[in-house]
Amino acid sequence: MGVKSIRRILLTLGLLAGISQLYSQTATWIWYPGDFEISLANRMQNRRAERGTFFPVFWKMDNYYVLMDFHKVFDVPQTETVEIYVEGEYNVKLDGKAYEGSPKIISVPAGKHKINIKVFNQANVPAVYVKGRTIVSDSSWLVTFEDKEWIDETGKTSDISATKWLNAGHWNFNSPSQLPSAFRLPTTKKSAVSVTKGKNSLLADFGRETFGFIELYGLKGKGKLSIYYGESKEEALSPEYCETLDRINVNSPAKKLEILPLSKAFRYVNIQFDNTVSLDSVSMLYEYANVKQRGGFRCNDEEINSIYDIATYTFQLNTREFFIDGIKRDRWVWSGDAYQSYLMNYYLWFDKETAERTMLALRGKDPVTAHINTIMDYTFYWFLGIYDYYFYTGDMSFIKQFYPRMQSLMEYCLGRRNKDGLMEGLPGDWIFIDWAAGLSKKGEVSFEQLLLCRSLEAMSICAGLAGDAPGQKQYQQLAEELKKKLFDLYWNENKQALVHSRVNGKQTDNVTRYSNMFSIFFNYFTDAQKQAVKKSVLLNDSIQKITTPYMRFYELEALCAMGEQSYVLKEIKDYWGGMLKLGATSFWEEYNPTKEGEEHLAMYGRKFGKSLCHAWGASPIYLLGKYYMGVKPLSPGYATYMVEPVLGGLQWMEGKVPTPHGVVNMHCTAATLRIKADEGTGTLRLKSRTKPSGSNLIFNLVNNDIYEASLKPGVEYTITYQAF
Amino acid sequence: MGVKSIRRILLTLGLLAGISQLYSQTATWIWYPGDFEISLANRMQNRRAERGTFFPVFWKMDNYYVLMDFHKVFDVPQTETVEIYVEGEYNVKLDGKAYEGSPKIISVPAGKHKINIKVFNQANVPAVYVKGRTIVSDSSWLVTFEDKEWIDETGKTSDISATKWLNAGHWNFNSPSQLPSAFRLPTTKKSAVSVTKGKNSLLADFGRETFGFIELYGLKGKGKLSIYYGESKEEALSPEYCETLDRINVNSPAKKLEILPLSKAFRYVNIQFDNTVSLDSVSMLYEYANVKQRGGFRCNDEEINSIYDIATYTFQLNTREFFIDGIKRDRWVWSGDAYQSYLMNYYLWFDKETAERTMLALRGKDPVTAHINTIMDYTFYWFLGIYDYYFYTGDMSFIKQFYPRMQSLMEYCLGRRNKDGLMEGLPGDWIFIDWAAGLSKKGEVSFEQLLLCRSLEAMSICAGLAGDAPGQKQYQQLAEELKKKLFDLYWNENKQALVHSRVNGKQTDNVTRYSNMFSIFFNYFTDAQKQAVKKSVLLNDSIQKITTPYMRFYELEALCAMGEQSYVLKEIKDYWGGMLKLGATSFWEEYNPTKEGEEHLAMYGRKFGKSLCHAWGASPIYLLGKYYMGVKPLSPGYATYMVEPVLGGLQWMEGKVPTPHGVVNMHCTAATLRIKADEGTGTLRLKSRTKPSGSNLIFNLVNNDIYEASLKPGVEYTITYQAF
Repeated sequence: MGVKSIRRILLTLGLLAGISQLYSQTATWIWYPGDFEISLANRMQNRRAERGTFFPVFWKMDNYYVLMDFHKVFDVPQTETVEIYVEGEYNVKLDGKAYEGSPKIISVPAGKHKINIKVFNQANVPAVYVKGRTIVSDSSWLVTFEDKEWIDETGKTSDISATKWLNAGHWNFNSPSQLPSAFRLPTTKKSAVSVTKGKNSLLADFGRETFGFIELYGLKGKGKLSIYYGESKEEALSPEYCETLDRINVNSPAKKLEILPLSKAFRYVNIQFDNTVSLDSVSMLYEYANVKQRGGFRCNDEEINSIYDIATYTFQLNTREFFIDGIKRDRWVWSGDAYQSYLMNYYLWFDKETAERTMLALRGKDPVTAHINTIMDYTFYWFLGIYDYYFYTGDMSFIKQFYPRMQSLMEYCLGRRNKDGLMEGLPGDWIFIDWAAGLSKKGEVSFEQLLLCRSLEAMSICAGLAGDAPGQKQYQQLAEELKKKLFDLYWNENKQALVHSRVNGKQTDNVTRYSNMFSIFFNYFTDAQKQAVKKSVLLNDSIQKITTPYMRFYELEALCAMGEQSYVLKEIKDYWGGMLKLGATSFWEEYNPTKEGEEHLAMYGRKFGKSLCHAWGASPIYLLGKYYMGVKPLSPGYATYMVEPVLGGLQWMEGKVPTPHGVVNMHCTAATLRIKADEGTGTLRLKSRTKPSGSNLIFNLVNNDIYEASLKPGVEYTITYQAF
Repeated sequence: MGVKSIRRILLTLGLLAGISQLYSQTATWIWYPGDFEISLANRMQNRRAERGTFFPVFWKMDNYYVLMDFHKVFDVPQTETVEIYVEGEYNVKLDGKAYEGSPKIISVPAGKHKINIKVFNQANVPAVYVKGRTIVSDSSWLVTFEDKEWIDETGKTSDISATKWLNAGHWNFNSPSQLPSAFRLPTTKKSAVSVTKGKNSLLADFGRETFGFIELYGLKGKGKLSIYYGESKEEALSPEYCETLDRINVNSPAKKLEILPLSKAFRYVNIQFDNTVSLDSVSMLYEYANVKQRGGFRCNDEEINSIYDIATYTFQLNTREFFIDGIKRDRWVWSGDAYQSYLMNYYLWFDKETAERTMLALRGKDPVTAHINTIMDYTFYWFLGIYDYYFYTGDMSFIKQFYPRMQSLMEYCLGRRNKDGLMEGLPGDWIFIDWAAGLSKKGEVSFEQLLLCRSLEAMSICAGLAGDAPGQKQYQQLAEELKKKLFDLYWNENKQALVHSRVNGKQTDNVTRYSNMFSIFFNYFTDAQKQAVKKSVLLNDSIQKITTPYMRFYELEALCAMGEQSYVLKEIKDYWGGMLKLGATSFWEEYNPTKEGEEHLAMYGRKFGKSLCHAWGASPIYLLGKYYMGVKPLSPGYATYMVEPVLGGLQWMEGKVPTPHGVVNMHCTAATLRIKADEGTGTLRLKSRTKPSGSNLIFNLVNNDIYEASLKPGVEYTITYQAF
């Protein structure tokens, strides 16, 4: 029985008013919203090393506020003792009057009282933890970085009242000893599955892609030792070209354990040492994010099951302090990569906090001096991510809190439109789109206009949530104007497609998949256009093929959105199955089936430049959840949702899709569907040769062979139907 | 012989090209401009404690960039070894290629090479020190917080070229071991001049106002010890009301020396301890800024000489890491106070660096979220300070470097004008003007419009220096419009004065001194208006009197600017002499001759709330230098300057006024003037009953009894004349 249900019972008993003193509140460390996240991102992203050399990001890293005021007004039922823990120098005020020194315990008399704690910390994020019986620190405290109080010549204190107070940021640091500044991901010991010892070397295979800190046992002697890491055996065995390495100067007459200070990605480690050095064995501390798997998928096709499992593991490895791109090389937070991770997250962990942290780390602080990660498209994905966050979680508080940062980022974008009101690469802008040979970034690329248009739509919705009615209207209008322009300027009637770009004010001849496939699941096309584009672009082999799982994600999504699940299932088996056949234990940054052998390991002109464990390789998690199990919210937070199972050639499938406070559980064959959801009102949509039936369900025909019924929460339904 | 002259000789010998290898460059620690200063200000301003309680500022404290790229291109004559010292994690690139690890020494081959050092530091400002034969770190290195480099899918590196590179910031940390993060002001030991010992107490008098760390010798036992600091004896003897105190838990079986961790301002310390505690003696570590006194003043009037000496000492105590307001209480950097300190500085230390550091600390970083120190007038003084800095030092590089921060601050101001284009207090704005009973801050105060107008003029000049021609024009136009408005809206023909304010669009009846006296030395009045205002306001006792040295500064300046030196001399003797007669060993925050006894110590409703050592109390330094010795620049950096000695009733005076690279030295009686300047072209202006004469000088009559002659640098002139 949880705290919630106890509360409910007590309420029922009419006792709650009397027992609030007994009721223990949860205290947690709090800080200025976003500041812990920025600081953690700074630490985390600066752990990248390339061949032993520190390799930081090339964009602005923001910093936290060093001086912070925290306050809350409490109505205290009876005198209580309050413990105060602070990261930084601080003072404490009760009703505006400061205690002498920096008290660790105060006594607060009964009545209404305002508590202020003001903290300075240069080396770490100012944070406080307060624990009394009713006075506890949590997100209901208000914080500001400028409290604007002064006294006049007579000693009268004034508060300039314009102070912007925000709700405090927090996570799950619920004990005084869990200092936010000391946060580290947990680790667990793992052994190698095989070890090959040479005279002055040791090659360990950990069985599959992994991540953590190498432990050297029984290290002894005086001399040099090098560790060459490999996601592949070839890489580990290449001291000259492996992407990551460590070097140690051993100087220990007695055997000792050495744990490497920086975590690394690897499957193999090749350890080489001087004659004067000896080593007993090697193991690792596997470092991981403590997220819970709440989604799942199983079906009759074992290859698909393997793909799902490897995707899950790939995503687990790339879910860390933040959603990162890949574990070997960058280990950075990239907005375009993160955007896909958010979506996979909603179908696997549904971990709100990691999504929030990632969005905050990416956004940083004002002033905006460049696009996120310096990439124009990546700025836009950030807006899209915020919108999806709201749609899947239903949490408005995050959006209300950070709406000003959304506004200033959008102002930056709008201020960079050219005379035609279009986004065009200015000095300092990286137009990325995708890794694809010869992709033109010149002029006004249609894909960027499309993403800005969607971003404006997201801004309009967020403005509404944040109570900015003029903004809501203005962003909507800007979106509509831009959408019209998009079709006026880029739609080519002969090609039946959006062209790639305009250069010098003229349409280019080039058609690429990007803006066409996005326009499908953005619902920007008419049905006729969708069908036309499917033929003219998506299934047209003369249009340049996509070789990254990154854009495969959207390409396959577009096809699924058009009901091509059978085709997509084959594509998944070909593409992700192709990597499995090559022995992948996690999915890659790029996969080109036409390459051979070691060619698969190379990228960026480097022999082992390719990441073999990249978050964007895990997209089957999303596709199987959203387009096969067919579960997606229809209104924020799954208040209403859609279930539209499509087997796409599978004989059966079963699984779970997480929702904010539960799951949608299903088992589906071509004849029977069993389904139960913990919350929300579902719309079950089935394509069936016959009218489906199930107890307590009323099916309506909504279109040719398509039937719908309404699902209540907490009820397990069994439906009989006949799939095509 | 200095390095410069050696260089000149070598040049003359035509040898310089060949000996650049021998010529040792000065290496110095460098950082992102302004970041060290912001960090130092954060540390310094958070040392305020009020009665043992941490008392930080109530405005935003900015933070430095944690990730920094430093680079420079060198043409190296022959292979050289370069030592690298860094505060933070770092990598080093030579011509774009990184060294493995974080090298401490590199070898750079002959030829043209680009060196990049990229540094991450969360806890301290990223800084580097590089020392080779020709490759050394100095302000010619370029820095950026976002280098915007990336590689494409083929491994090609691109620099987005829009990167904004600034010249590195630096000070005088010229050895590898002088870490910027470890900077502390120097200290020197000082003893008390008298000590009164009680059974459990000790009262020490250090003879005059001082600042530093108390040292307790022979401290022993177990129990409590308290130190009550007093700028006055009364304050030290009042454990209940003294403004600053320290408490120690003594726990030492053997005698030991305890040095208090926080510096304090005091003349007296009253130490009280438990029976179980004993103490041998007390002394202090006097903490001071190592600035050199380059200006000076002496005259026949010993009271004036004492005033000058005490002003100098007052200013020395308040010249610290930055120019601060006062040493006892705030110890903060306040822009209005600092503005006066800049001016005094130009007549005493001429310490460019302290002025620069103070302006940078005050400005902080974008985004601007409030006025400087939250005070509207204090924002404007910042602009005025920048202008004066340029005018006195002639250094354009500082202005060019920080012009963008000037622009964004001015944008903030202009964005807060009301519908009539006037500055009016918005929520969050503190309209300060002065500590004066009942001073109205309502509506549109004329003084604020006046300061904005002057700030716009300063911006226009700085825009010109920074190469922003449209800005130069725009700011000038805004200034002209506002000046016209000032006279249209506030000049009252009946009162022959600018009125204090407009409320609800109507002139108020109130006349105060502020905007009238500023308009005199801003030269905004016609000569007729000046003469009228002198009578109607300045010398009119029915207009509210000024009781702070802060505004006395400007009031007396206005009178001096109108030739009232004799009157002002009496005022100085009355006002500052009044404080001396009360035993002041430094000048106060406020002095009201009508008060008596302990009343002089009170302020802000607190018995000892008044600061007895306030920078703004030191203004005689400025008045005597600028309006009696009469030296001031006519063009930036004293390229041309004015000397207009006015004895104002003194029989003789002598002294020095510092210029960027020397001094103007003079001795003046009513009959003879001896003068010599090290640099610049001077205009000597004398009011004389007869035509002055001196060898190598040609005097021209420029007005009634006023003669001018031109002075060359390095020549000592003796002039005979006849003062009025």
